[in-house]
Amino acid sequence: MKIMVLNLGSTSFKFKLFEMGESETLLAHGGVERIGEKTSPWRLRFPKERAGEAACPRHEDALELILRLLAEDGVLSGLDELDAAAYKAVHGGSVSGARPVTPELLEQMERFSSFAPAHNPMYIRVMRAVGERFPQLKQIACFETAFHSTVPLYRAVYGVPYEWAEQYGVRRWGFHGSSHSYIAMRMAELEPDARRVISVHLGGSSSLCAILDGKSIATSMGATPQSGLFQNNRVGDFDVFCVPAMERALGSEEAVLSALSERSGFLGLSGVGNDMRDILAAMHGGNERAALAFRAFCDNLVGYIGMFCAYLRGLDAVCFTGGIGEHCAELRETVCAALGFPLEPGRTEGKISAKESPAAVYVLETNEELMVAKRAAECLNGRSQERR
Amino acid sequence: MKIMVLNLGSTSFKFKLFEMGESETLLAHGGVERIGEKTSPWRLRFPKERAGEAACPRHEDALELILRLLAEDGVLSGLDELDAAAYKAVHGGSVSGARPVTPELLEQMERFSSFAPAHNPMYIRVMRAVGERFPQLKQIACFETAFHSTVPLYRAVYGVPYEWAEQYGVRRWGFHGSSHSYIAMRMAELEPDARRVISVHLGGSSSLCAILDGKSIATSMGATPQSGLFQNNRVGDFDVFCVPAMERALGSEEAVLSALSERSGFLGLSGVGNDMRDILAAMHGGNERAALAFRAFCDNLVGYIGMFCAYLRGLDAVCFTGGIGEHCAELRETVCAALGFPLEPGRTEGKISAKESPAAVYVLETNEELMVAKRAAECLNGRSQERR
Repeated sequence: MKIMVLNLGSTSFKFKLFEMGESETLLAHGGVERIGEKTSPWRLRFPKERAGEAACPRHEDALELILRLLAEDGVLSGLDELDAAAYKAVHGGSVSGARPVTPELLEQMERFSSFAPAHNPMYIRVMRAVGERFPQLKQIACFETAFHSTVPLYRAVYGVPYEWAEQYGVRRWGFHGSSHSYIAMRMAELEPDARRVISVHLGGSSSLCAILDGKSIATSMGATPQSGLFQNNRVGDFDVFCVPAMERALGSEEAVLSALSERSGFLGLSGVGNDMRDILAAMHGGNERAALAFRAFCDNLVGYIGMFCAYLRGLDAVCFTGGIGEHCAELRETVCAALGFPLEPGRTEGKISAKESPAAVYVLETNEELMVAKRAAECLNGRSQERR
Repeated sequence: MKIMVLNLGSTSFKFKLFEMGESETLLAHGGVERIGEKTSPWRLRFPKERAGEAACPRHEDALELILRLLAEDGVLSGLDELDAAAYKAVHGGSVSGARPVTPELLEQMERFSSFAPAHNPMYIRVMRAVGERFPQLKQIACFETAFHSTVPLYRAVYGVPYEWAEQYGVRRWGFHGSSHSYIAMRMAELEPDARRVISVHLGGSSSLCAILDGKSIATSMGATPQSGLFQNNRVGDFDVFCVPAMERALGSEEAVLSALSERSGFLGLSGVGNDMRDILAAMHGGNERAALAFRAFCDNLVGYIGMFCAYLRGLDAVCFTGGIGEHCAELRETVCAALGFPLEPGRTEGKISAKESPAAVYVLETNEELMVAKRAAECLNGRSQERR
């Protein structure tokens, strides 16, 4: 069974093609960037490394291009050979897990567009367009919320009128489920005795997940992926009662929410940029606001890890992943020093904690696409658990 | 030096009159309720217990009534003998500490009225009216934010454009400073070796404070007293990106914010009421939503205590106070069981933890008015530290 996992950005298209059987084999991966510009650079990284440029006005053109390139390389003869396209979809509210893309599913995702304005509208549009251009291709949406269906209800509710949760989905859902579930799986292999694990996914967007016996019991993101830890350009936790004052200052609620989802986080606090490498460079050059952003982010992490230790009633292991989690040693060192977890000097992957650390500390590369492919294969095999 | 501390509710007026010297002596206390109704019941509790009813259309009438009653009892001959009226004021943004009430101060408080809609407008109105009726009386505002001026900036900022904090006060301020500072003072007397203390004030509104060496280093309320733990009828932590969906449902942003500040918290979640005693009774009668609200509140507390343990790098003592904190044994037992702090059976005040508990657990009655009187006396003596 061949499944192509699609990971969409506003102007980018990344894919991984898997052969799913007893085990999973990666057949190809690559992507297209600057979609919508005059020409779009594409790159196949595996099984052959090659690159070029092509006209790709929209994401569906990028898929068509990739299918042609894979046929040229003899990796995939055509659509007949592809069992499904699977998406790392973000928000379907109470509709979660892995689901065939249907008009009803797209309507449900539309209901949550204002919860995930950077993701849902784009995914909905691309799923519709791909369905029209390739009507014979099965499409599966694997929701990022699914892994968190095991968080107890009393931890998921906000202090709002109860019917808001039931009727409008105003409750904590959590995201980054593919990444956190991959880390849960890998940690069970690497540290089988570690029942209490915290997965720390830090990247373009960031969240933590408390994992007990392989299951999510808490996560830092709430009803929407703009909440929790602050992020590249998104606000994270915020006090809704600041909205009226900022509305008077900026002119409209829309202007406030757009500032909170696009000009906040590292970018807003530091004034330097939304890339952690730029923040660190500025901080080491003496920029005080960059230093403030870095310290605030580390402190935010320490606080959430403390909170999750209380939920887990202790901690056996913590695992950093995602672009920042995997590559920013200074951040890991700052956070682990505050937590009293000594690290083995110079270690940057696998187990990085010193022997005397009260909790094991890991750095692992995540593999979200693999988890999406697994869930999609279960769905095609009729074994999908409809979560929630 | 005689200072009368005023604690205003929307239809209530409570006072404590102190003689401030080397030590503090309580001279009188009591209050008036149902202000604005046809007649308002009043009660003096100390030094003599007596009660009655009088016409009190507004809070300034209640003050006039109390002054007359105290003169009758020979406690205070008149206004000449009163050095100041001191208010437990809520929000002045960067203007904090204890401050003489001036037109400029009232303007600053007005700027923060949308941050504290249940408090600031009422306090401003009463301070103006008392100033007009008793022009010779000194008025001092002691802000609830003052104790938290020692929270480090990197823990106070939100992930928003930095100028929002500087220009509009969009940062974490924290509240309940009088109560948390009283607990810090008492714990230093009772457990002098406890450097790391968490004060848990649970009442009509609720917050936690992490105290290191007597100073606040973190608190659960943010920019406004509607944030943090959920409360009687206020929302607590919430995801601002739910606002557009709820605005479509309820018709306006104003309707959403008013629901979040008046029909949320215990009231909204449980559907039973906003009083913890009613919630517990309903829960024990089998009401599932009441049970959900109770469990959610306890879990919220456990999470914040875990977070603050990480900030404090350990914990020596935790102290419950406020109406719920002092009187709800079931809540304390649930929270301490989850934290692994065994309690001494049957203890309900003072030190309640068992010897083997890794952290001492206390129940103390708070005394916010005493701290307000102390700060006001310092201000009158010119020893006020202008905090922030």
